[in-house]
Formats: sequence, structure tokens, C-alpha cells
Amino acid sequence: MLELYHAGLTTCSKKSRLALKEKGLAYKSHYLNLGKFEHHDPAYLKLNPNGLVPTLVHDGKVVIESGVINEYVDEVFADKPLKPADPLGRARMRIFCKMADEYALPATRIPTWTRTKAAQVQAMSAAEFDRVVSETALVDHRLKLQALRGEGFSKKEFDEAYGRMDYVFDRSEAALSESPYLAGAAYSLADIAILPYIHAFREVRPELMTTHPRTTEWYERVMVRPAVQATYQPSDETGTQR
Amino acid sequence: MLELYHAGLTTCSKKSRLALKEKGLAYKSHYLNLGKFEHHDPAYLKLNPNGLVPTLVHDGKVVIESGVINEYVDEVFADKPLKPADPLGRARMRIFCKMADEYALPATRIPTWTRTKAAQVQAMSAAEFDRVVSETALVDHRLKLQALRGEGFSKKEFDEAYGRMDYVFDRSEAALSESPYLAGAAYSLADIAILPYIHAFREVRPELMTTHPRTTEWYERVMVRPAVQATYQPSDETGTQR
Repeated sequence: MLELYHAGLTTCSKKSRLALKEKGLAYKSHYLNLGKFEHHDPAYLKLNPNGLVPTLVHDGKVVIESGVINEYVDEVFADKPLKPADPLGRARMRIFCKMADEYALPATRIPTWTRTKAAQVQAMSAAEFDRVVSETALVDHRLKLQALRGEGFSKKEFDEAYGRMDYVFDRSEAALSESPYLAGAAYSLADIAILPYIHAFREVRPELMTTHPRTTEWYERVMVRPAVQATYQPSDETGTQR
Repeated sequence: MLELYHAGLTTCSKKSRLALKEKGLAYKSHYLNLGKFEHHDPAYLKLNPNGLVPTLVHDGKVVIESGVINEYVDEVFADKPLKPADPLGRARMRIFCKMADEYALPATRIPTWTRTKAAQVQAMSAAEFDRVVSETALVDHRLKLQALRGEGFSKKEFDEAYGRMDYVFDRSEAALSESPYLAGAAYSLADIAILPYIHAFREVRPELMTTHPRTTEWYERVMVRPAVQATYQPSDETGTQR
């Protein structure tokens, strides 16, 4: 029995939904509305003390962090493996998984939080804002909320975010000059980790698709996979039909 | 044949040196002096385009990123496994490995770069500084060098770094209330990933050792392991006998 707590089309939630669907695994979906701060619910924080999505519960066992969830699911359910069979291929895959978590995720938050959270945070009463900040487990998120309540993110933060987007595109382009997928001949957790960021970055920086033709071709090719289409299409899981 | 390019006692270099020594694997050591920017050498950048240490070369195959190197080494050399045998244990281990890379490493750079690099960067000629920045592959590192050349890191950056140190200590303390090592009953890549950061943070924030007694006990217990002692003691590998 698999249960996934997630926020639909947010990047890390998509990573785990993409992996579960690609492997053909059924799961009970628990959609959390981040705009309503459902991830701050004390019952949810017991499962995920970081107050982040997604969280997997497998026969009562809790696994957090999308990248860790995806490696766990692929280890436990051997069918339709999403890791290269050889250690060097897995190392190459993990470089992209790390890049997604360490390089791409922080970059996407700067424009995305500005677009989705700034107005909401500024409209809060002082008491409401203080409560939301006090419920936020991670210091970097608390500081980001405070920035959005004030001056917004700095020019340095935007410069770094944009530089990181360039980096993710450049490394993807280089890898795709060697093989059809990011970690080799087969679709893997590397492609699943990077796809939501290419999807997000191309909305902020459409010119990157023009300057990175292999990445664009890969993007169009993986977006039509049935599991990817099922992840992106509006459904109970994306919050768009609630 | 294993070769490790590393910078001795820097945190990520120690992570891979700790793992190789714990597994009893012999390797050819290539010490890079970061103060002399030996990691900017074009020959090294061919191995590691990020210009970071460490880099492993195994029979001509290149693996970068200390966390990826450690998983690779543990997969390829089955003796003395450094991963829990069960998937849930490995998930728990990977949470700590991610915490080291995503949470602890950025936190350690703020005080450490201020202490080790600020004076050097400020003493450079404009031409020398521009060359060093242009050789720096990663945008976040370029921006950090520019900050150190100017006003230094901001109060927000120090606040975030200190909050991240609290977080790493708090999560370690919680895990060690459940098991003698961070990912369970046995010493693993989780302990190896976190040890260099506890070692570093306790120099900046000695009070954290007092407030986290289980982490202090764990620290003292793992520091006397033979492989850990061999990693920390001055040698050709630490640059202290050159």
C-alpha cells in the first residue's frame, strides 16, 4: 500500500508522481494545497518535519524527499527499473539528481515564489504572517518569506538563479550530445529529476530552449510519454479539479 | 586502480577519503592546493568541469561529487558495505547525505570562506581577481568571490548559515536518540557525510556541542575509528607535510 502526500504540479511533487506513474505503481493520492498552507498542518508535520512535499508512506513506513523517495521506490519495486544497470551509469544519473535538488530547485524558487507567494505574503496581517513564519521548519524558507514580505529577492539572488538555470541547461545539453537520455540509453531518474525544472525554466527563460536544441528535442520527446502526460494533465492530483 | 584528486582536509574531500579508507581501498592521492587555485588548472577542469574537489578516477572512468563517489565506491567494492542492507535504511542514510550536501555545505562556506579566502581575494590585483572569477565554473562561487572582494557576506547569509548549522545538529541529535549511528545500527555513508560538518561547525559554534549531547558522544566515538584518524592526521594527503 503506497500513499503519496504531494502538491500536484510543484516541481518536487511532480518528480515523485512521475516516477510512480512511470513504474506503473498505484498509490493513494493526498493532495495538499500549499496556498492554504496545508503542509503546515501538525498532522502532516509529524510525517514530514521539514514541512515539504512530497512524502511517501509505504505500508506505514515514511520516506521523505522526492529524490530519496524515487531511489527507494525503484529499489523496492524492481519492475521497470529507472536506474542504469551499471555503477558508472548510476553515478552519472545521481549527478543529475543532485543537480536538480541542489542547483535547479533553489533557482526555481526565486522567480516562482515571487510570482506565487509575494502578493499573498504581503496581504497577510502581521499576526498571520508571524504565525506562518513560526510554522515554517526550514530557516532558508523563513528567510525567503521575510524577504517577500519586504523588498523581495535581491538582484544577486536573481543573478544566481538565472546562472543556475544556464548551468542546468548547459549540462543537459552536453549529456544529450552523448546519449538520448540524460544518464545514458534509457529514461531514468535523471530525466525525471530534471524534467520539472526544464519545464519551469523554459517559462521564465524561453530563449534557453532556442540556444539548447538537444534539450528542447529531449523535452518534447519525454513530455509525450504516457506517464508524463498523466502527471501533467489536470486531475484530482493536480488540484485543478477540486 | 583508484586515483583521488582532493584537497585534504576540506569537507567534501574528507568525505571521500573517509569512505575509501573505511573500506580499506588503496588509492593514488593527488593533493590540490586550493589556495593556489590548483583546481582551476585546465587539465583538472577536464576531469571535473565544475572545478570542485574531489574527483575519483577508477580505471580511467571519472566520477565527480563526493556523495556520488561514495555511493559508487560502495557499489563497486562490496566488501565492508557502508550502506544499510534494507531500502528504508538506505533512504534514511540518503536523507543525511542530502542534508550534508544541500544544507551543511552551503552553511560551512559562509564562515569558512570569510576566514580562508576574504583576505586573499582582497589582496589580488584587479586583473588577477578577474582571471580567478572567469576561471570559476559555478555561478554561486563566482558571486561568493565577488562578495568577499566587496562587503563580505550579508547578515542574512550568516543568519541562514547559522540556522542551517542548528538544523544539522538537531536532526543528528534526533536520529541518534533512535540508533547509535545516523542511519541505524551501523556506521554508514550518512555518518561519513555529516562528520566533516559537525567537525567544522563545532569550531564556529562550540555551544552546539553542549546543547546536543548525543551528537557530541557520537562525534567522539566516530573520531577514534582508525579510518577517521588516518583521514585527519597530518600526512601527504592533508598538504601539511608538503
